[in-house]
Amino acid sequence: MTNLATQALTATFTRLYRLSHLASMAAWDQAAMMPPKGSEARATALAELQVLMHQTLTGAELADQFRAVDGVPLDDVEQASLREMRRQWQQANLLPNRLVEAQSLAQSRCEHAWRKQRKENDWQGFLENFREVVELARQEGSLLADAAGTSVYDALMDKYEPGMRSAEIDRIFGDVKGWLPELIRKTMEKQAADAVIVPQGPFPIDQQRALGLKIMTLLGFDFEAGRLDVSTHPFCGGVAEDVRITTRYSEDDFMRSLMGIVHETGHARYEQNLPREQLHLPVGQARSMGIHESQSLSFEMQVGRSPQFLALIAPLVQQHLGQQSAFEATNLAALFTRVRPGFIRVDADELTYPAHVILRYEIERALMDGEIEAEDIPALWDEKMMAYLGVDTRGNFQHGCLQDIHWPGGSFGYFPSYTLGSMYAAQFFASMRRAQPNLDAQLQAGQLTPVFNWLGQHIWQQASRWETAELVTRATGETLNPVYFRQHLERRYLGA
Amino acid sequence: MTNLATQALTATFTRLYRLSHLASMAAWDQAAMMPPKGSEARATALAELQVLMHQTLTGAELADQFRAVDGVPLDDVEQASLREMRRQWQQANLLPNRLVEAQSLAQSRCEHAWRKQRKENDWQGFLENFREVVELARQEGSLLADAAGTSVYDALMDKYEPGMRSAEIDRIFGDVKGWLPELIRKTMEKQAADAVIVPQGPFPIDQQRALGLKIMTLLGFDFEAGRLDVSTHPFCGGVAEDVRITTRYSEDDFMRSLMGIVHETGHARYEQNLPREQLHLPVGQARSMGIHESQSLSFEMQVGRSPQFLALIAPLVQQHLGQQSAFEATNLAALFTRVRPGFIRVDADELTYPAHVILRYEIERALMDGEIEAEDIPALWDEKMMAYLGVDTRGNFQHGCLQDIHWPGGSFGYFPSYTLGSMYAAQFFASMRRAQPNLDAQLQAGQLTPVFNWLGQHIWQQASRWETAELVTRATGETLNPVYFRQHLERRYLGA
Repeated sequence: MTNLATQALTATFTRLYRLSHLASMAAWDQAAMMPPKGSEARATALAELQVLMHQTLTGAELADQFRAVDGVPLDDVEQASLREMRRQWQQANLLPNRLVEAQSLAQSRCEHAWRKQRKENDWQGFLENFREVVELARQEGSLLADAAGTSVYDALMDKYEPGMRSAEIDRIFGDVKGWLPELIRKTMEKQAADAVIVPQGPFPIDQQRALGLKIMTLLGFDFEAGRLDVSTHPFCGGVAEDVRITTRYSEDDFMRSLMGIVHETGHARYEQNLPREQLHLPVGQARSMGIHESQSLSFEMQVGRSPQFLALIAPLVQQHLGQQSAFEATNLAALFTRVRPGFIRVDADELTYPAHVILRYEIERALMDGEIEAEDIPALWDEKMMAYLGVDTRGNFQHGCLQDIHWPGGSFGYFPSYTLGSMYAAQFFASMRRAQPNLDAQLQAGQLTPVFNWLGQHIWQQASRWETAELVTRATGETLNPVYFRQHLERRYLGA
Repeated sequence: MTNLATQALTATFTRLYRLSHLASMAAWDQAAMMPPKGSEARATALAELQVLMHQTLTGAELADQFRAVDGVPLDDVEQASLREMRRQWQQANLLPNRLVEAQSLAQSRCEHAWRKQRKENDWQGFLENFREVVELARQEGSLLADAAGTSVYDALMDKYEPGMRSAEIDRIFGDVKGWLPELIRKTMEKQAADAVIVPQGPFPIDQQRALGLKIMTLLGFDFEAGRLDVSTHPFCGGVAEDVRITTRYSEDDFMRSLMGIVHETGHARYEQNLPREQLHLPVGQARSMGIHESQSLSFEMQVGRSPQFLALIAPLVQQHLGQQSAFEATNLAALFTRVRPGFIRVDADELTYPAHVILRYEIERALMDGEIEAEDIPALWDEKMMAYLGVDTRGNFQHGCLQDIHWPGGSFGYFPSYTLGSMYAAQFFASMRRAQPNLDAQLQAGQLTPVFNWLGQHIWQQASRWETAELVTRATGETLNPVYFRQHLERRYLGA
C-alpha cells in the first residue's frame, strides 16, 4: 500500500508484525528449546508482549489512522489490505487488556504443565490449570460473539477460519459421519487380505532425522529460511522468513516422524512462499488455518501417501534405515495407507483422521457453548472414541484427551481446520488433475514441480488477497465441495 | 521494594525486564539457531523492541514515577535499587530513539554479515557495514560523554564497568605491559624443557559435547534452567531463569571447546544464582561485565586450569575421548598451562590473554576517541600483535581483527572487562585462600563446593546491591588490587 492515506496504517501494522516476530520465536523456543525453569519468566514476558500488541491495536492512534482512510479511494489490493487490517482491529477492540494478559499467562502455564502431566497421565493436575483456560476462552468468545451475533464457539472458530459457522460444519461433518464408518469398515476388510511386511526397528533417531531432512529438501523446503527441530507436539512455527518446523522421534517407529515432517513441510512451504513484499501486512499473511492445513494435508495426504511419492522416497528410506523388504515401494504404499483405528490423532491414517477431528469438534463446541464443563471431557472422549473408532480410552488420558496441545494452549475452534483442510486439499488436487491430466505420471517420474507451481500460484502467492470462499473459487471454480474428499478416499482406499 | 511510593517504578522496571527477556532470547537465537534468511526480519524486530524499551525509559510516565519517590524515606536496599534504576534511566534519556533504532539495526546487520565475512577473510566487505556501527557508537558515546564529563570511550566503557575510567585502565595495563613480556619469556623458556604429550585427534564432536555436559554438571550448572548449544562465537546469553551458553567444536582440538565451556559455565552460575526475588529489578541483576568476567575467569583460570581440577576431570576426558597418555592428569595440567602466543583471544593461554585484551583496548579507545578510523584497524592490529606477541597477522583478518563479535556488535569498551575480570578473580581466590587455607587440598579431593559457596555468598547473591568497588571491598577487604593477578601468574607459571 503506497497510498499516502494508508501510510500511517501500514507503519502501525508493520510494527505489530515485528513484535509478532518476537512472540512467534519465543513461542517456538518455549516448545522446542526451553528448559522447565524458564517457564514462568517466559510466560510473563509473552503476556507482556501480547498486552503491548493489544494496546497498539486498541489505541486511539490506530483508530485515528483507520478514520483517516474513510472515503479515500483505494484500489482493489488496497481495499483487501484494509479489509484484513480492519478485521484484526475490530476483533482486538472487543477484548479488554486484562483478558488478553490473563489468557496469555493461563495458556502458557497450562501448556507448560501439560507437557509433564501428559507424560504422567495426570488429568486431575491438568484440570486445575485448564479450568481457567476454559473460563477465559469462554469470556473471549462471549465478547466476540456478542458483536458478531454468533454462538460463542462460532466466534472463536472465526479466528481460525473466518466466515465458517458450526451450522455448516455440522452439515459437512454430519455427511462424513454418514459414509465414513462404512468406508473404514470396507477398507479394513479389503486390507485384511493384504500381506503387509512390518518394518523391523529400532530405527536410529539420527538416521530418521537425516532421512527427514532429505525429504524436506525433495519437497522444496528452504533451509536458508528455516529449521527442523524436536518438540513434544509437532508444529510449524516461527515466521515466514524463518520457518521452524518440529517433529518427534521414536526409535520404534520411523513412519510417524516421516509423515509428520511431510505434513509440517506443507505448512512451511506456504509460509516460505507468501509474497515477500506484503509479509508485514495482514493481507500478505496466510489466509486461514483451514487453508494452512490444506497445504500440510496436500503434502501429507495427497502427495505423501500416494504410491508415486512413496516409490520416489523408497530408495531414500533404504539408504538411511537399511535394506528391508518392508522398504520396497509397494510395501511402503501399503504401510502408509493401512487403516487402523488408534489413539493418536497426529499418527492417524487418512481414513480415521476425520473421526478424531469430529470428536474434538463436538466436545469443544459443547464446552465453549456451556453445554458441558471441563471435567466432563474424559467421559465424552471415551464414549465418542468407542462409538466412532471402537477404541477404548478409559483412564488413558495421555493417549486420550490430553494428547493435543490445542486445548491447553487455549485454541478452541481450531480442530475443524484439519478436516476442512483435507477437503480443500482434495478439491485442489481434483482441480489440478483436470488442468493437468498427466499429473500422476509426472509424480511417478519424480516431478513434484507441477504441484508446487499450482499451489504456489493459486494459494501461496494469494496470501490473504481474497476471502476464503473467493480464494477457493478462483482456484477450483467452486466453493468448498466435500464431494472431492469422499471421491479421493474411495478411489485411494477402495479403488472405486 | 514493597514501599508504596516505589511500586509504580517497580512495575515499570518489571515490564522492561520482561521485554528484555524477549530481546535476550531473540539475540541468542540469532547467534545459535537462526538461518541466514531470517536475518533482516530479526534485525527489524529487535530494533522495534529496543525502541519500545527505550521509549518506556524515556517516557513522561517513568519521569513522574522517579519524581514521586524524591524525598521519600527509603531503606538501604531500596536506595540501592533506586540507584540502579536511576542509572539506567539517566543513560537512556541521553539517547534519542532514532539513534537507538539505528544502532540496533546497524549492529544486527553488521554482526550477521560478519559471520560470513569472517570465514571469507573479507575485511573490505566488513568495513562497509562496520563504518556505520562505529559512527553510531561514537554518537552514542559523545552524548553520554557530554553528560558525564568524560571522554567518548570512557562513557562507553561505563556501560560495561560503571565507574571505571581509561586513566585507571592505562595505569593498570601499563603496569602489566611492564612485567608480562618478561613473564611470558621466562615461562616459555622454562616450558621448553617440558615433555608435553600432544593428544591425538580426531576428537568426535558428539563426544566433546558429552564431555562438556559432564563438566558443566560437575561445575554445578543447572540444566533445568539452561542449555548448551553451538555458535560462531561462544557466549553466555538468555536470561537468569534460563541461561543459554554456547561453544564451538573442532574435531582437531578438544581443549578449546572444553575450556570455553568451563568459562561460559562461570558466567552461567552467576546468572543462575542471582537472588530470585529481585531479578526483575536492576538491583537484582549482575553487577558489571568486569565482575561477570571475574566469574567466568574464576571458573576457567583459577579453577579450570589448576592441576587439582585437571586431575579431577582427567578420568572424564579419558572416558569420552579414549585412553591416551596425553590425558593423564599431569600432562593435562601441562597442556592447559602451556604458553604459546597465538592468533585467537578466546583460545589464548592465561599468560598471553592480557596482551590480546590490551591490544584491543588500545585500538578501540583510539577508534572511539577519534584518533583513528575503522580502516586503520588492520595495520594497528598487525603492528601490536607483532610487538606484544610476535605474531604476524598481516592479511589474516579472519584470525586477526575480524575474530571477535564485540566490534561488529557495537560493544566498544567491553574488552577491558576481561582483564579486570582476571584480576578480580585472582583477588577473590587470594581472599578465599586466606579464609580457607586448605582450599587447594579440598579442590584436590574433588570438593568444589567451598569455591561455589564463597562466590555465591560474596558475589552471586549480592547482585547489584553494591557498586563495584564496595562489592570487591566487602568480599576481599580492599578495592581492585592487580598485585594478586601477578602473584597468581608467577606462582602458577614460574612456581614463584
